[in-house]
Amino acid sequence: MSEQSANIGVVGLAVMGSNLARNLASREGNTVAVYNRSRSKTDDLVAEHPEAGFVPAFSYEQFAASLHKPRTAIVMVKAGGPTDAVIDALLEVFEPGDIIVDGGNALFTDTIRREKTVRETGVNFVGMGVSGGEEGALLGPSLMPGGSDESWVTLGPILRSIAAVAEGEPCVTHIGHDGAGHFVKMVHNGIEYADMQLIAEAYDLIRRGTGKSPAEIAEIFAEWNRGELESYLIEITAEVLRQTDAATGRPLVDVILDQAGAKGTGAWTVQTALSLGVPVSGIAEATFARSLSSHPEQRSVSRNLPGPVEALQVDDVDAFIEEVRLALYASKIVAYSQGFDEIRAGAAEYGWSIDLGAVSKIWRGGCIIRAQFLNRIAEAYDAAPDLPVLLTAPYFVEALGRAQDAWRRIVQTAAGAGIPAPAFSSSLSYYDGLRAERLPAALIQGQRDFFGAHTYRRVDREGTFHTLWSGDRTEVEAEDTH
Amino acid sequence: MSEQSANIGVVGLAVMGSNLARNLASREGNTVAVYNRSRSKTDDLVAEHPEAGFVPAFSYEQFAASLHKPRTAIVMVKAGGPTDAVIDALLEVFEPGDIIVDGGNALFTDTIRREKTVRETGVNFVGMGVSGGEEGALLGPSLMPGGSDESWVTLGPILRSIAAVAEGEPCVTHIGHDGAGHFVKMVHNGIEYADMQLIAEAYDLIRRGTGKSPAEIAEIFAEWNRGELESYLIEITAEVLRQTDAATGRPLVDVILDQAGAKGTGAWTVQTALSLGVPVSGIAEATFARSLSSHPEQRSVSRNLPGPVEALQVDDVDAFIEEVRLALYASKIVAYSQGFDEIRAGAAEYGWSIDLGAVSKIWRGGCIIRAQFLNRIAEAYDAAPDLPVLLTAPYFVEALGRAQDAWRRIVQTAAGAGIPAPAFSSSLSYYDGLRAERLPAALIQGQRDFFGAHTYRRVDREGTFHTLWSGDRTEVEAEDTH
Repeated sequence: MSEQSANIGVVGLAVMGSNLARNLASREGNTVAVYNRSRSKTDDLVAEHPEAGFVPAFSYEQFAASLHKPRTAIVMVKAGGPTDAVIDALLEVFEPGDIIVDGGNALFTDTIRREKTVRETGVNFVGMGVSGGEEGALLGPSLMPGGSDESWVTLGPILRSIAAVAEGEPCVTHIGHDGAGHFVKMVHNGIEYADMQLIAEAYDLIRRGTGKSPAEIAEIFAEWNRGELESYLIEITAEVLRQTDAATGRPLVDVILDQAGAKGTGAWTVQTALSLGVPVSGIAEATFARSLSSHPEQRSVSRNLPGPVEALQVDDVDAFIEEVRLALYASKIVAYSQGFDEIRAGAAEYGWSIDLGAVSKIWRGGCIIRAQFLNRIAEAYDAAPDLPVLLTAPYFVEALGRAQDAWRRIVQTAAGAGIPAPAFSSSLSYYDGLRAERLPAALIQGQRDFFGAHTYRRVDREGTFHTLWSGDRTEVEAEDTH
Repeated sequence: MSEQSANIGVVGLAVMGSNLARNLASREGNTVAVYNRSRSKTDDLVAEHPEAGFVPAFSYEQFAASLHKPRTAIVMVKAGGPTDAVIDALLEVFEPGDIIVDGGNALFTDTIRREKTVRETGVNFVGMGVSGGEEGALLGPSLMPGGSDESWVTLGPILRSIAAVAEGEPCVTHIGHDGAGHFVKMVHNGIEYADMQLIAEAYDLIRRGTGKSPAEIAEIFAEWNRGELESYLIEITAEVLRQTDAATGRPLVDVILDQAGAKGTGAWTVQTALSLGVPVSGIAEATFARSLSSHPEQRSVSRNLPGPVEALQVDDVDAFIEEVRLALYASKIVAYSQGFDEIRAGAAEYGWSIDLGAVSKIWRGGCIIRAQFLNRIAEAYDAAPDLPVLLTAPYFVEALGRAQDAWRRIVQTAAGAGIPAPAFSSSLSYYDGLRAERLPAALIQGQRDFFGAHTYRRVDREGTFHTLWSGDRTEVEAEDTH
């Protein structure tokens, strides 16, 4: 091992970390220092991948000594305590101007806190979202780094070298300062939840409405993947539905327990949106659908609740499938519109300058929600960077206009047949809420004024008003303090 | 002012605090010490209400000296910093065994933190939810105290003396330790959000479907208030809809700006439910509906989005109104079921022993969601305290069986006509999700295993499994670590 021979280091060599290290080492110009708390992982990695030319380190001092300046380390350990411990250890051996990148799945508010603390030492701290799972880490992830402009000068070329490439462009951009990268990664995951739930609802409706087998439905998804729905998730849905369980000979999807797990990022996305006042109903319904599925003790006592007597049986199967496709597409537009709304609101709240078009472009490759569709989003933001609602961009308006009748019919079909379609329905309600000339929110304001003197505003003049409900019911102008 | 002459004190004499102090003073056996940071409020209250026999204090020392032991103070100041400041000041002058009650709108996790800190001094800290607004505070609120059993011995009789009375029972019970009271108050508010949104959707559908005027719809709500929907919110809805704006001669609800405000407790309820893995989709949709309404810049660019060409016009008006009523009732059952599910999950998470039937009983009077309906919930939990899902109690199953056809038709009507009904639709989707024999969550598990090796369980045997998707696609038994 030679002094200062590496330009980049990786701390934490579990699957994600070692795959990212191998990815880095495979690119021209990179020499990669590697460190892991337990020595054996480092030894194994170096032994198994001689081609990588790794520079192994067995202490933080060694690790620091092996890196030339500015030292740059990507930390790939568990979020929370372990991340803090590694940062503290690196700060002992790093110097002002060096760069610590947290590539774990941190909550963005933790990243903001860490960046603030680390900045005081003169070291740069970069919270970076890494999407694409184990395969993405190895072959090309979508990367969402936050942090300072200074750190981006060093990091940019390195990250561009390892990121996925979509239409000739590397799937990485400097998202914004401090926690911006982890924020955007969080919303990416929230959108992923919505996307998956919408696909699940589409599958369920087709299965129950047409009686087609999972393998037959796989062909429908494969066909959809050749059109405007083209995306990684549609593609792998076909793969999963096509799979036969070797043990039973049944479709795999029928032997998988129908209780969906979650790792928390869907919930984070919704919790953050609630704090920001952004309605991300599609992501919320997707998250709730998973939690509902995971309560067998509740579902088992609910099986015999009253429902429609007759099962759904569709007459024109092909027309129905096309309507499901349109409902899926329209709902997907809503989910992405809500997700980008959350990023816009987050940027405003935390003072980040985020290029929404650039975000959609770096999601075109490497990550789970990669899709053709993201080009349309990029075009929308290129044409109108300050678009207040993504789905009002001309391309989407046209698509929604084409889809909305079918979308309505599918929601009606699901409601009538007793098939749960929470994300389809919720997206439609959101869409109709946005469109509404008047909302019954006015009645809610009246109720709030009645029981809590919360006051209301009027459509016809400025000010804040209160009706003396327990008095003579005249209206008074109120101070806006409630 | 005499030493130790008061058995209870109130700190913070804004409207809620002074009304609560007057309520306390009006009950046999209570002598009430009052203190406010700025002296003038204390002077005014004492001067305006000589009948109350208040014992004014102008310093914390005086306040403490005026109370006999165990000293008991109800703090009614703003949540957050102001509450912490008053607690610190009281701890300077209180002694072990004394009781500090926070009657403000604290987040339950703050209450847990404060209780822990205060307990170390030997003083009892009680977080108490107070519902019913200004009028409730004066005439009889619904009270949700947490805190220690020791504090309840002293507090119980005092709180029972001032609480609202429903069917002969005071609307107060010792909810559970530390933050339990504020937790239950939070969920109360979340349910209130759902209840109000459901009423708003019912109103909107009737208005748009029948063309009836707000005054005419007021009569429908007044009629509903004589049946199974009888409740304070239905009652005041009729009052609000009946109101004419003096300035314009138009219905007040038409001159109120249709942007609903929020004070954060709806969002807290949903955020907490997400952490607990409890699907409270009705409360979430209600919260999101308010945030959607409050973005005029988004709504104004969305008015011309494609929608149904024809406006809704209902043929059989009376039948339609009855179906809306049934949809409202069914959705309301879902909202309460979800809310009680959150309380149950919160109790399990935080180690509280909460009597759900007792909670429903203390909501029958004093608070915003007071309703006949809550007797049915109490009966359900009396019959089966461990009921895993409230809506599976026989009474509700009967009601849902009676309502579900209408509920489905109303959701279909809204979807077809382009009228947003997010809470109606979401409750129905939740209901159908609970009922489902199989959910497409199995497909989601398959997708997660495909892209992230998250593993899945099987319906036919124990264990955790992974399909080698990028390999030969055989299944392997996996360690359950993902």
